[in-house]
Amino acid sequence: MTATRAPEFVTESRTALDRLFAPGSVAVVGASTTPGKLGTSMLEAVRNSGDLPPTVFGINPRTEAPGFHVSLASATAENGSPLDLAVLCIPASMTPAALRDAVDAGVGGVLICSGGFAEVGPEGAEIQEHLARIVTSSGTRLLGPNTSGFFRPGRATVSFVPTVADIRAGSVAVVAASGGMNHALSFLLSENGIGVGLGVGLGNSVDVTDVDVLAHLRDDPTITAIALHVESVTHGEALLNVVRDVSARKPIVAVVIGRSDVSAFSESHTGALATSWKTTRALLAEAGAVVVDSERELVDAVAVLSRTRLSASANPGIGLVTAQAGPGLMILDALLTGGVSVPSLSEETQTELSRHLPPMTFQANPVDTGRPGPTFADVLAATAADPSIDALAVYALAEPDAIDLAAAVRASGVHETLPVVLGVGGPAAAVNATTTVAAGIDVPVSASPTSLATGVAALVRDARSRYLRSAPPPSPIASTSPRVELPADESVAKDLLDELGVSTPPRRVCRDRTAAHAALAVLDLPVAVKILDASVLHKTEIGGVHLGVRTPEELDAALDALDAIDSPAYLVESMAPAGVDLFLGARRDPVFGPIVVAGLGGTAAEAIGDVAIRSHTVSPAAAVAMLDDLQCAALLDGWRGGPVLDRNEYASVTRAVVQYLAAHPEISDIEINPLRLTATGLIALDAVVVPTDPASGHRSSEGEWA
Amino acid sequence: MTATRAPEFVTESRTALDRLFAPGSVAVVGASTTPGKLGTSMLEAVRNSGDLPPTVFGINPRTEAPGFHVSLASATAENGSPLDLAVLCIPASMTPAALRDAVDAGVGGVLICSGGFAEVGPEGAEIQEHLARIVTSSGTRLLGPNTSGFFRPGRATVSFVPTVADIRAGSVAVVAASGGMNHALSFLLSENGIGVGLGVGLGNSVDVTDVDVLAHLRDDPTITAIALHVESVTHGEALLNVVRDVSARKPIVAVVIGRSDVSAFSESHTGALATSWKTTRALLAEAGAVVVDSERELVDAVAVLSRTRLSASANPGIGLVTAQAGPGLMILDALLTGGVSVPSLSEETQTELSRHLPPMTFQANPVDTGRPGPTFADVLAATAADPSIDALAVYALAEPDAIDLAAAVRASGVHETLPVVLGVGGPAAAVNATTTVAAGIDVPVSASPTSLATGVAALVRDARSRYLRSAPPPSPIASTSPRVELPADESVAKDLLDELGVSTPPRRVCRDRTAAHAALAVLDLPVAVKILDASVLHKTEIGGVHLGVRTPEELDAALDALDAIDSPAYLVESMAPAGVDLFLGARRDPVFGPIVVAGLGGTAAEAIGDVAIRSHTVSPAAAVAMLDDLQCAALLDGWRGGPVLDRNEYASVTRAVVQYLAAHPEISDIEINPLRLTATGLIALDAVVVPTDPASGHRSSEGEWA
Repeated sequence: MTATRAPEFVTESRTALDRLFAPGSVAVVGASTTPGKLGTSMLEAVRNSGDLPPTVFGINPRTEAPGFHVSLASATAENGSPLDLAVLCIPASMTPAALRDAVDAGVGGVLICSGGFAEVGPEGAEIQEHLARIVTSSGTRLLGPNTSGFFRPGRATVSFVPTVADIRAGSVAVVAASGGMNHALSFLLSENGIGVGLGVGLGNSVDVTDVDVLAHLRDDPTITAIALHVESVTHGEALLNVVRDVSARKPIVAVVIGRSDVSAFSESHTGALATSWKTTRALLAEAGAVVVDSERELVDAVAVLSRTRLSASANPGIGLVTAQAGPGLMILDALLTGGVSVPSLSEETQTELSRHLPPMTFQANPVDTGRPGPTFADVLAATAADPSIDALAVYALAEPDAIDLAAAVRASGVHETLPVVLGVGGPAAAVNATTTVAAGIDVPVSASPTSLATGVAALVRDARSRYLRSAPPPSPIASTSPRVELPADESVAKDLLDELGVSTPPRRVCRDRTAAHAALAVLDLPVAVKILDASVLHKTEIGGVHLGVRTPEELDAALDALDAIDSPAYLVESMAPAGVDLFLGARRDPVFGPIVVAGLGGTAAEAIGDVAIRSHTVSPAAAVAMLDDLQCAALLDGWRGGPVLDRNEYASVTRAVVQYLAAHPEISDIEINPLRLTATGLIALDAVVVPTDPASGHRSSEGEWA
Repeated sequence: MTATRAPEFVTESRTALDRLFAPGSVAVVGASTTPGKLGTSMLEAVRNSGDLPPTVFGINPRTEAPGFHVSLASATAENGSPLDLAVLCIPASMTPAALRDAVDAGVGGVLICSGGFAEVGPEGAEIQEHLARIVTSSGTRLLGPNTSGFFRPGRATVSFVPTVADIRAGSVAVVAASGGMNHALSFLLSENGIGVGLGVGLGNSVDVTDVDVLAHLRDDPTITAIALHVESVTHGEALLNVVRDVSARKPIVAVVIGRSDVSAFSESHTGALATSWKTTRALLAEAGAVVVDSERELVDAVAVLSRTRLSASANPGIGLVTAQAGPGLMILDALLTGGVSVPSLSEETQTELSRHLPPMTFQANPVDTGRPGPTFADVLAATAADPSIDALAVYALAEPDAIDLAAAVRASGVHETLPVVLGVGGPAAAVNATTTVAAGIDVPVSASPTSLATGVAALVRDARSRYLRSAPPPSPIASTSPRVELPADESVAKDLLDELGVSTPPRRVCRDRTAAHAALAVLDLPVAVKILDASVLHKTEIGGVHLGVRTPEELDAALDALDAIDSPAYLVESMAPAGVDLFLGARRDPVFGPIVVAGLGGTAAEAIGDVAIRSHTVSPAAAVAMLDDLQCAALLDGWRGGPVLDRNEYASVTRAVVQYLAAHPEISDIEINPLRLTATGLIALDAVVVPTDPASGHRSSEGEWA
């Protein structure tokens, strides 16, 4: 894929996308009357769009039929003004000329459905670059090529897939990397009772990218949530910016492809742990998207978030009311596994619940009602009124004779004070009856325990993410610090860390043996004695590190060894107390710019890939919380009597290092490994500052970020 | 829950369960004619069962209505022979007397729906124990109490949930811990086009357990797959035995609750890493169940496995044919993430495919057909014919004008030679049309990319699991080895390992300093010098381990230190070369008996809980494969030039240790930590043999196995 036009996150493009996505007039270039042809299907689809279809022109010099014209120019003349959209249903080789015609005719947007471009090899790539050159300086926006199109159910169908007409209209926008996934997702949403407001497949993204479409959707009042499907990211920082901006206004749920792309491991320790899949997911989540694992979870999350949203909150409490213990247990298990808080209800609440429920049921949260009866609305109201509860999850098997769940919600009024998500098991007719009543009060309904738990977890993650960004605005910590002299040896790197507020061990740089012995005399023992050479990255491997030195004799032995490997100087340094070794690396990601990668030191965490990743704009609150992402997070909180990580100290270190990197283009990587967690705080025991490769502009690492 | 009757995995119970689950005559005790009452709903439900409902008697001394009797005895008299089933719809306190009546009347099975037993406290538990005493020596089987019942759609509905009548009949059995989950799962299966042959909620399992029901289903020709829902396991070995036996004949898909029950960490390292959720899942999978993460994955897996099954195979190859690249990529990502092999097709196959597909599509596997055309059946046939392909996964968006996916399968005939799983995206009408045609040729259809991938992964896991068990029958390795003298110090423990064929370092037990110095003179250097005291479990913590000793002076220093902590003797031992430290622990699980728990040494793996667990009957092939479960498995295969684990050597060590434990009830735990992987093989660097606590019969560890 070649993207010749850098899509900035700008607002000027909005008008152009308005004409593209809400066209009043459409030309189908290569339209046909022959059944089965692409141009026939597309023409039919556009003509049959909703109740108020656009004015449609078929363009084909060889077809005489009503509504057909020989050229765009002739159609434009009949229309009386430039057409809003031209859909090109012609072979790849013919598209540049047709695109040029469209630009010349002042068309607002062009959609190219055909394949045969960059995805098939150099010849196609050349045509694609030609398209890019044509459109780049024009006022025309290009969607595609290599996409089945887009649709706004009930308003405009610009897709050659005929079944699109069955997709129900609604308020969710689907922004998919591929036309196939746009359709697959839109059908899934529709079949799960969630309407689609706009479905877009981006295809080869020569011009219009996900960044443009997200920006376009930001202020669209008909869209309440966005489902984002990502296959690869080309303009990382622009994508993060627009996600940050849009998700503050409406929720974005994202699924990222590429988990199984196990990249080659990198030469540098930090890079080796981060794959682009992990980076993309972590940074999208940091920016505000709810990142899910599959298109099914995406449907569950969008089902809830398109209808309701929690206020920004560090840890919203969920009240779980269930009419059956078994499914309730499954929901609780899934919620807790997903890190969702299901707090115990207050004694007051439990007293109130006991007035409405038989004595033998569990009422602390989950609230097990037993077979639902007439007091169900009271139970909901009492649970919702508990001060620790921010949203309700309610499950019951459909029993038409016993309970109308949605009616009970309506009667209780709880949906007017907090988000409520229903789960109903049973035959389709009963579930649909509940769904219909619930839709009337904008309450989402899930059809299984896991769906319910996934939707509620999405609600919580969305609220947490906004909380992490809503804390005091990130103030630059360290970008004004001075440049460091490059190449930097360990001591210079540690001097930089000192300036950034990161603790390092007391140390002396010793140019000769006398200085080393003097250092031994004044430093706390034992000391580490190390080679000091900016050109050596892996000191231990060459015998350049000697630990536990206490006596002049031991020092001499260490110095002898360092002399044997031609150490230009010696670093003599007090050893830190025992603790938990972390690593923290700031580096330039080729897609997303400066990022920070952190985790536990050692090979186990590395082999598992247990890392947390954030951007250089990470907020203080997000930096405080970031290590909670780690599977091994328990090691940071006093594991077996060990030290407890001060999350605020950690956040300061992280932000200082990555912001410094962001402000200093001459540096490619800053790696602290280990960053030791001790009883008295964090200490950087080793540090490497890697200069940017002047030839490439950044350190080359294509292999790692496939 | 109290289970007073130990359910063995026996066949004698079959007749009893036949009468329970396929009753020709049913009495509803506590039947009523008052709308809304449990006894009314149940009577109606049983009376309206299918086309050939059983003979039904209402039992209520206070109700005069057609079909009602004052007592079981009177109904039995009218029936002319003992009734097959009595359903008790009466309060808990009245159930013991009614159960006694049923036993006396020779009733085959009794179902108790009411709650109010062990789940509500001591008073209920007492009633439940009373029920157990009544039924334990009788010929009557008891289902429940505290369950909503069971159903055989189209044949018998013994559930008070009225919507059960809508569940479609089919060949899947649902065996659920709770009545609520039985209904929730059965509805989900039904709504996803999968019919249910028997749905059972076990409730408090006073008598009939999952073990009984699984054994009952083993030879039922109407059942092709079993969906098992597990909340807790009381008779672990019986459950594993029946799963092993039944899964050899028909697939079992299991979901286990309790992932979020984070147990307190145990005192012993090995135990700390295994929670009962992990143990249950690992052992069910080893026994042959396909263990899934949610009820939704269960539906996906059962949808496929109830219709088709692969032959036992170590690594079946999947051919993925997709009409749209985007969904195809998502399916491929999910398959590869799930460890499913999607092998490249042979050149011959690709040449054949190129005859049926346009040149620009990807044809190596996945096979991207582009928009499906008339050659689709040829593409399926060519892919299926590839020697590396054992099953086909096929996805397309529904395009009624372009392709009938199921018809293409039928035309190709591929479903007659290998398992085929279809995935279709689109509006319900189109998906249902495909599903109907596909059902005619017993080909399962999934409605989303993730569903398809989950179903195919289940197919593969089922085949692999049978392969691992079908390898040469497990021969006991070490059960005849002699008893070890207890309590055992480190040297005695290592002597045992030597006998079991596990390598240990060369060592000398030294009773005095002279012996220690003599040992230093003959052993390879450096040596470790350790305290030798069977009563000390944590040697390092008390200063009982001195490493890297090379000289007589260093030895004296180490011995001085050991003398200071009153070491009764010294262990002097050559140190092993560097490598990767694993741990391997054999222990007695209170539920499942002797098990082996293995993983990487060190705190990171421990904090993450990255362990593999197997039973003492683990097959050689399963022991060879077990460490592939680990997230950190890459560390075992030459990570950064390190040693490569010989999986066969590992399997021998594992089986020897756990089989020895199984044969020696006087031992509670055998722990090897570390078990070092070196370039020349595995070496046990430390070993502990823990005697069984004579008071409890096994080492107490309730806290860890909640």
